[in-house]
Amino acid sequence: MNQDYIVPDKWSIIEEGFEKGRVKSSESLFSIGNGAMGQRANFEEQYSGPSFQGSYIAGVYYPDKTRVGWWKNGYPEHFAKVLNAPNWIGIDVFVNEEGLDLNTCQKVSGFRRELNMKEGWYQRSFIALLQNGIKIKVESTRFLSLDLDELGAINYKVELLSGAAKITFKPYVDSGITNTDANWDEKFWKILEVEAEDNQGFIISKTLKTEFHTCTFMQSELKLNDTKVSGDFQKETTEDKVIFTYTSNAKEGDVVSLMKFAGYVTDMNHNQSELISAAKAVLTKATETGFTKLLQDQKDAWAKIWEMADITIDGDIKAQQGIRFNIFQLNQTYSGKDERLNIGPKGFTGEKYGGSTYWDTEAYCIPFYMATKDQEVARNLLTYRYNHLEKAIENAEKLGFSNGAALYPMVTMNGEESHNEWEITFEEIHRNGAMVFAIYNYVRYTGDFEYIPEKGLEVMIAIAKFWHQRANFSKVKNKYVILGVTGPNEYENNVNNNWYTNYIAKWCIEYCLEMIEKVKDGHKEDYNRIIGLTRINDEELIEWREVAEEMYFPYSEEHGVFLQQDGFLDKEIIPVDKLDKMHRPINQKWSWDRILRSCYIKQADVLQGLYFFEDHFSKETLEKHFDFYEPLTVHESSLSPCVHSIQAAKLDRMDQAYEFYVRTSRLDLDDYNNEVKEGCHITSMAGTWISIVEGFGGMRIVEDQLSFHPRIPDGWQAYSFKVNFRNQIVKVEVNAGKTTFKVEGDQSVLILVKGKQIEVNPNESVTV
Amino acid sequence: MNQDYIVPDKWSIIEEGFEKGRVKSSESLFSIGNGAMGQRANFEEQYSGPSFQGSYIAGVYYPDKTRVGWWKNGYPEHFAKVLNAPNWIGIDVFVNEEGLDLNTCQKVSGFRRELNMKEGWYQRSFIALLQNGIKIKVESTRFLSLDLDELGAINYKVELLSGAAKITFKPYVDSGITNTDANWDEKFWKILEVEAEDNQGFIISKTLKTEFHTCTFMQSELKLNDTKVSGDFQKETTEDKVIFTYTSNAKEGDVVSLMKFAGYVTDMNHNQSELISAAKAVLTKATETGFTKLLQDQKDAWAKIWEMADITIDGDIKAQQGIRFNIFQLNQTYSGKDERLNIGPKGFTGEKYGGSTYWDTEAYCIPFYMATKDQEVARNLLTYRYNHLEKAIENAEKLGFSNGAALYPMVTMNGEESHNEWEITFEEIHRNGAMVFAIYNYVRYTGDFEYIPEKGLEVMIAIAKFWHQRANFSKVKNKYVILGVTGPNEYENNVNNNWYTNYIAKWCIEYCLEMIEKVKDGHKEDYNRIIGLTRINDEELIEWREVAEEMYFPYSEEHGVFLQQDGFLDKEIIPVDKLDKMHRPINQKWSWDRILRSCYIKQADVLQGLYFFEDHFSKETLEKHFDFYEPLTVHESSLSPCVHSIQAAKLDRMDQAYEFYVRTSRLDLDDYNNEVKEGCHITSMAGTWISIVEGFGGMRIVEDQLSFHPRIPDGWQAYSFKVNFRNQIVKVEVNAGKTTFKVEGDQSVLILVKGKQIEVNPNESVTV
Repeated sequence: MNQDYIVPDKWSIIEEGFEKGRVKSSESLFSIGNGAMGQRANFEEQYSGPSFQGSYIAGVYYPDKTRVGWWKNGYPEHFAKVLNAPNWIGIDVFVNEEGLDLNTCQKVSGFRRELNMKEGWYQRSFIALLQNGIKIKVESTRFLSLDLDELGAINYKVELLSGAAKITFKPYVDSGITNTDANWDEKFWKILEVEAEDNQGFIISKTLKTEFHTCTFMQSELKLNDTKVSGDFQKETTEDKVIFTYTSNAKEGDVVSLMKFAGYVTDMNHNQSELISAAKAVLTKATETGFTKLLQDQKDAWAKIWEMADITIDGDIKAQQGIRFNIFQLNQTYSGKDERLNIGPKGFTGEKYGGSTYWDTEAYCIPFYMATKDQEVARNLLTYRYNHLEKAIENAEKLGFSNGAALYPMVTMNGEESHNEWEITFEEIHRNGAMVFAIYNYVRYTGDFEYIPEKGLEVMIAIAKFWHQRANFSKVKNKYVILGVTGPNEYENNVNNNWYTNYIAKWCIEYCLEMIEKVKDGHKEDYNRIIGLTRINDEELIEWREVAEEMYFPYSEEHGVFLQQDGFLDKEIIPVDKLDKMHRPINQKWSWDRILRSCYIKQADVLQGLYFFEDHFSKETLEKHFDFYEPLTVHESSLSPCVHSIQAAKLDRMDQAYEFYVRTSRLDLDDYNNEVKEGCHITSMAGTWISIVEGFGGMRIVEDQLSFHPRIPDGWQAYSFKVNFRNQIVKVEVNAGKTTFKVEGDQSVLILVKGKQIEVNPNESVTV
Repeated sequence: MNQDYIVPDKWSIIEEGFEKGRVKSSESLFSIGNGAMGQRANFEEQYSGPSFQGSYIAGVYYPDKTRVGWWKNGYPEHFAKVLNAPNWIGIDVFVNEEGLDLNTCQKVSGFRRELNMKEGWYQRSFIALLQNGIKIKVESTRFLSLDLDELGAINYKVELLSGAAKITFKPYVDSGITNTDANWDEKFWKILEVEAEDNQGFIISKTLKTEFHTCTFMQSELKLNDTKVSGDFQKETTEDKVIFTYTSNAKEGDVVSLMKFAGYVTDMNHNQSELISAAKAVLTKATETGFTKLLQDQKDAWAKIWEMADITIDGDIKAQQGIRFNIFQLNQTYSGKDERLNIGPKGFTGEKYGGSTYWDTEAYCIPFYMATKDQEVARNLLTYRYNHLEKAIENAEKLGFSNGAALYPMVTMNGEESHNEWEITFEEIHRNGAMVFAIYNYVRYTGDFEYIPEKGLEVMIAIAKFWHQRANFSKVKNKYVILGVTGPNEYENNVNNNWYTNYIAKWCIEYCLEMIEKVKDGHKEDYNRIIGLTRINDEELIEWREVAEEMYFPYSEEHGVFLQQDGFLDKEIIPVDKLDKMHRPINQKWSWDRILRSCYIKQADVLQGLYFFEDHFSKETLEKHFDFYEPLTVHESSLSPCVHSIQAAKLDRMDQAYEFYVRTSRLDLDDYNNEVKEGCHITSMAGTWISIVEGFGGMRIVEDQLSFHPRIPDGWQAYSFKVNFRNQIVKVEVNAGKTTFKVEGDQSVLILVKGKQIEVNPNESVTV
């Protein structure tokens, strides 16, 4: 079901030709966002064909009443999810009373969409032959301003290609919207105020239950052949809409255009009582700046992002387009400015997974933002979890833990657990380990040890307490075991001694103990505060250490590998390539029990551990495990191929590494799984970035130094990327035979290249 | 939360005093049924307080659209469930325009309910002081006729205790009802016709989707002081009701009464186009017979049932009341006449579990019906599954099995799976074994080997095929293993090598192979037909045998017991009596993961196997396992204590056996789990019967002979029961020192008593 319709291009995502069956998919792919809000590429004008309307405001969510077949004790009552926000893009168009609707008009030709990633705008153009015989050419350009992040701008042009006609624009804002992902078909918004003043419209509405107050606003302006005109102007307010009507007579060749500024202000950032004046302030600023200048500012702002985040690939245009699409989407989704926000698996491109926070952030996204933004952005992501610590402790208490043990939720918006599948919610507890790994990874990369006494250690202690309580001593094994878990490979549920979980549990405890000592030594005041808060004592710490030291790890002597869990070798072991294609993907073809008792692995599990804790194992160990587990892996998670790509690269298997790389980088563009209509896989896009930087580039941090082991796929002439390492920008350009390093900063940087140290001075290049 | 409000009585269930909080519980406990339909003890007159309306027609179900939180491949689209049928009992009562409503009247006194189990009727009486100051005494008697099983009868009397007043009765039938257990709050009935003729009313309605056509009918008659009067009579039909109005002036001391015949006829038993005439025929028959005679017939019919099914207990009135309540409910629920019907876990007393068929029937109910009815009834229950074989094969195909392998559904109404919890639906596959065990048990008890060539062998072969395909060879164990199952103990999910499942799988195959040989030898024609149908061949049978012979069974050398599953000993083993009471019941106090990784057992699991296959193990083996597993069992299933009671008795631990016995026998009457408002635990009531007959009485079948090992609990003077063994009725009366056997039949019966054979001649007593 590979939908290979996106035109290859280095900087743009382009669709040519109109196909109704592709509308929903393109709505996802051409989504725009600015970190504070996002918008699927829905049409401005009415469209009666199948479409998935989505406009999202970062941080604004709704606790939807849980739907469940069979209730289990401990399930949360609600699933906090992003919700479709009021429509700000709407512009209905009429030509001599006939509404423009691409689903019903006589003919659509020259249909083209472009998402210009370099400059951050989206444009759609087409020629429509209406039922009344009139032909018009439409070009609509829109963007979400990075600078004024409460503002969207649209320039909607209609050129009359035949005869004379009356052109009517009806720009509107609409809060009477519904959510595609609503468990009980409830409305999520309550409308409080609908107002129109001159050419400005405002709707104040609030989300039910969470009471996020939002003002959706618009302002519009009519032009005829580039000259502002008033036309025949009317205003209308209904109970959930503000609608303006502009009518203008046009003759053949005339271009009538409507410019619309619109967007949201919310009480997350303004006083509840001053939302309309806040909206007016945005509109005033926008009006003063003007559409053209705003668009120029947009281009500049994106240029700045690309300056740091771009990855170039020479000799593989589709790979180039793929990686830029990933980087573009990550930047559209999360700017890192606001510690209350996080990265939903679909970003602003859809509603699946509730738009909430998963362990994806800690395991996959942090490295990307850490290296392509600055330290503060990664710190904000860590702080997000620090701020949720109290709720994570409450969550653990609900599951029977005590004494300040914390279990971070599988899925969350506000710190409370949202998920309700017992085998995930209660058992996929390895996520707790990712919280600590992210702190470790952050400190390793940034050198910002201060984060630990300040915030990190509290999180680590609460998590160590959890592991201590969650493990139990097995008399028969004479070891500590962790029973009833689901590992990263969700195609195994309720297993005992998942190696990855046991390993990260042990590591969490040991790392925490180490950090307690370090904080005790160097940050007495913080230490005393934390001891007071967490009430840890020597006795407890001795018990922790015993659990860590005596942790059980399933191992096969025969194969020389750690076993994914107890009993793994009881399964019938048949490699994926021996499995008839008719059975794939198994998650669509097989019942759940069959998946569970099969040997097939959804995503890296033991290998995820060998990736996180690479330094703890030899290359031979990695190779053995890779050879054992990779052939059993079906990669039915978007988060799987990147880890394998990195490891294949490390094992000098560049063909395989490249294969895994392309699998993720164009997952959405080529719509491998025929599901892009639901939204894009945002968090796995960070994995694509890691595949290049850590995989092909071989970047690591070795004792506070950057280290690289550059490799290049056969078909590529060169690739380059930049990383911000401790405020020095290091640019790496890899060619078949050589690698060039350049530092854009003020200090020289010592870099290990394949183990040998070089020194790169500011604004100089060193080629190895 | 023990609701100890039922008055102890040998033959009746009695409630005294009115408490609004008890209404729903009593509605369950005082339910009436006649095998073809059932009715919760809802009030006839309007009641505005909390109530759970329920009227059920056997075999009439609705496939309710599944509700699920997270869809898994293979889940059924629908849950077939019994549905609340149109209301036939309604009689609104007005006294001088004020509606009688026990929730709102000034005072209720002398409230009493009696469910007379001996005679099969239910009566409610009370005195109400209305808001208008008038005092009335009400006595309402109703029953569901066993003889005319489409008929219910009500005699509703109002005695005016003060002054003069106008008494109005509004008997009605109402098809505008809803279901408490509806996943999507949909209506399940469509009304086709509402008709009133003279004093008869009819509503034809059909269930949506399944299109069961039903005529709900009534006929009523007014009496003043026992004399038929016409009163002021009016008829009214609405879109979903027929309402009659009878008004009569009464003076102090007058008794005004309304007699109502009502009920259902359905197109399961009549032509769809002739439902009204079928209903009229029932009413004609009822009118000819008259209320008094019908009630007498009812008493006679119940006397006949009790003659065979009664268990008497001397010296323990609560135990006596308990066991009779169980026997009464089982007989109200299932008469055994109709092979399309089965025994829902709540019978006609509620809607929980969909009113559908579970393995409870095969494991617990068949012994009761087999011994207290005749062979045909048990045969009908087996045939029910035989008729569903094709659907069981389809069900297995959906889960990836082939070649005619069958997996019987966990929950069903029409043979299709209804359940959707992967750990149960897909993994609690031991239920398949119960289907075969029931056949084995039936043939062992009745000697009706003919059932096997006729129907049973096809079922057994399809199930053997399933086990053969479901097991896989483990190289490390060098044995066949069964991975990813849920055993009878549902507090373990997705475990490997559940001993019970592995054991019954092995046994199913071996028993099937044995039966194939027997049928081949003695029933050539059937044999050829079955081979043709099932396409089994020698090669397949050799593979089956290998799986059976090389089946793996987890075992602990240290404890000398079979382990419930792989890894059981990794758990922390803390006996239930060491667990703080605050944690119990764990299914209400603990999250699911905590339950799963605990050592606590919901219901007999290994011990269930030792019960089914008692002959395969020594008493010492039983004792060892009982001592190991019983202390870990929380008995949070109603099906658990009976098995333990039987085994404790066998181990001569009569105090413990008695304790387990009382736990089930009054489970609902004393409402141990504060849930009787949802309905009674019908299937576990059969377990209570088994506890006495197989537990205390020690009844077994040993090589075609009845065998007993009578024991008696300390507090009892005597108990007696009867069993129909191959058309000879054997009555057993156990006293502290002696047991008396009597045969009511025409042949002498050889009986083993504690291993010694005695001969009991027809209509003679032998005391041992």
